[in-house]
Amino acid sequence: MGSKKKGTRAERELFDMLWCVNFSTIRSAGSGSTPRPSPDLLASNGKRVLAIECKSSKKENIYLTKKEVDELNEFCNLFGAEPWIGVRFNNMKWFFIDTDNLKKTKKNYYCVNLDNIKKKGLNFDELIGKFRQLRL
Amino acid sequence: MGSKKKGTRAERELFDMLWCVNFSTIRSAGSGSTPRPSPDLLASNGKRVLAIECKSSKKENIYLTKKEVDELNEFCNLFGAEPWIGVRFNNMKWFFIDTDNLKKTKKNYYCVNLDNIKKKGLNFDELIGKFRQLRL
Repeated sequence: MGSKKKGTRAERELFDMLWCVNFSTIRSAGSGSTPRPSPDLLASNGKRVLAIECKSSKKENIYLTKKEVDELNEFCNLFGAEPWIGVRFNNMKWFFIDTDNLKKTKKNYYCVNLDNIKKKGLNFDELIGKFRQLRL
Repeated sequence: MGSKKKGTRAERELFDMLWCVNFSTIRSAGSGSTPRPSPDLLASNGKRVLAIECKSSKKENIYLTKKEVDELNEFCNLFGAEPWIGVRFNNMKWFFIDTDNLKKTKKNYYCVNLDNIKKKGLNFDELIGKFRQLRL
């Protein structure tokens, strides 16, 4: 399966997970169709609005451009939404990190590392606030 | 130009109009890709969230199924959004009507009529609250 197809599959998986916990969720028509910033998913339970940029990879590092992150923040500032990056490494569950906690690399890229996000990211239940794990 | 292509063009036009007045707006990936309810456009300025189902036609009546309207309301109830139908008749500007004010026809359809919406619908500026016309 190609990486683009896999990305879409991952995005739809998260879309369904959000609906299952009663978040009304919309999938974006895609960044290619417009120059405007647009998160992959936008979900709300009437209290919180989550804007999620989804990334999946079989490698141990996922890179995001500064432009991607800036646009997500820009969208969220105006909409009144929380900016999240959702990452799905091969054979792992979803992890989530907000844009403030992303690690910037030298070349104007942000990097999400598998080991790091297992420690510092939120899992799905934590994201939606169902359960917050104690981090000692 | 086919009616589907025309519909997409109308939808993108409204998408751009909303961005131009500082509403962060997302276009849905389309109802075909998921059985979940999904409005065509979802827009917010951080205060109000507008969920808009877009319809365009060269005829004088636009029909919506009960299912379409129910799903829009369902999405909005959960998300905390306002349910709007945006209609674009040939050579006319956009008009908007909320789902509560839709006229139901006999066959489980809702109908938006050109003459009627010119009198009872909101125009774009009224929708976004920039200007509310006095209706005497």
